[in-house]
Amino acid sequence: MELYSGPINRLIDELAALPGIGEKSASRLAFHLINMPKGKVERLANTIVEAKEKVCYCRECYTLTDKELCPVCSSDKRDHSMIMVVENSRDLAAYEKTGKYPGVYHVLHGAISPMLGIGPGDIRLKELLERLQDDSVKEVIIATNSSLEGETTAMYISKLIKPTGVKVTRIASGVPVGGDLECIDEVTLLRALEGRTEL
Amino acid sequence: MELYSGPINRLIDELAALPGIGEKSASRLAFHLINMPKGKVERLANTIVEAKEKVCYCRECYTLTDKELCPVCSSDKRDHSMIMVVENSRDLAAYEKTGKYPGVYHVLHGAISPMLGIGPGDIRLKELLERLQDDSVKEVIIATNSSLEGETTAMYISKLIKPTGVKVTRIASGVPVGGDLECIDEVTLLRALEGRTEL
Repeated sequence: MELYSGPINRLIDELAALPGIGEKSASRLAFHLINMPKGKVERLANTIVEAKEKVCYCRECYTLTDKELCPVCSSDKRDHSMIMVVENSRDLAAYEKTGKYPGVYHVLHGAISPMLGIGPGDIRLKELLERLQDDSVKEVIIATNSSLEGETTAMYISKLIKPTGVKVTRIASGVPVGGDLECIDEVTLLRALEGRTEL
Repeated sequence: MELYSGPINRLIDELAALPGIGEKSASRLAFHLINMPKGKVERLANTIVEAKEKVCYCRECYTLTDKELCPVCSSDKRDHSMIMVVENSRDLAAYEKTGKYPGVYHVLHGAISPMLGIGPGDIRLKELLERLQDDSVKEVIIATNSSLEGETTAMYISKLIKPTGVKVTRIASGVPVGGDLECIDEVTLLRALEGRTEL
């Protein structure tokens, strides 16, 4: 005999398949959702589908956004000659929270990882090189995580870009080794930005 | 300037409002959902709405189910003269997992808590008394949590039922004090059942 009825079991299974949600939190969440007012539940479900449907990649920097150009790329207050390369949109948001970075971004959506079989072709590297074609870019700041994958990606990008003559820098290792960029406080993030060195 | 685009921010806000999900896990989850295949996202959204729509209370024991009678109440293999009173459907599932409880259940959907302003009228107590009207019930086993609220509820129910002549028992305090029934291993749950004492 199943513990709960079909719809509850299916909901628990679907929730437990999400990252960071174990079987126990999934069943807690499921019962919370079932006890929520119907309107709120439908709004949540719609928000999930809407986010999936409306969100696309920015044509310039490939961050996730709902317009053709993200707010940073479409702003004329930003320095478009300075591109910060990050692994994902959450890392971009971490630097945006500091409010002090004047340039624009490029989101790789991953990092090179031979272990996971992720090669240079699997992240948005070709698109970064295309952005360097028109000579308007003066500096590329590599802000991949300071994990093994992030460092590998940083070295790879620097070797790729150096021949083009564009200045390539790496955020300083104020960021603790093995740390995830999005979990670090803003002061450390800024110190890492200020202390960036040419590769 | 907002960190993410509208649909992403709305999704993060909705997810962060769920229990046990902080701002950081909400943004992780949101990006995971956005990167999931469209079909899977829609299935998750549908499962949530379907669970909310199809799930109702069992006519007998008030657990959450999708039929008029839950599988336990509709089974003729269960001893319907023995009712175990639990605070919620997850606690019911915890005892069902042991596979050794022969009786049926009654789900209160809460516990008496003067602190939170939850009185006897706010949980399914009246419905429990109605089930005792027809003399077929021989024993009521109170399996509310061994928290202050659970103990208060147990004492209240026992005083209410004793005058009717029905035997009232409480699961043994093998359950650690302050513990949540659903988090406890099956052996402890069974020991608590075996060691139940008359109130």
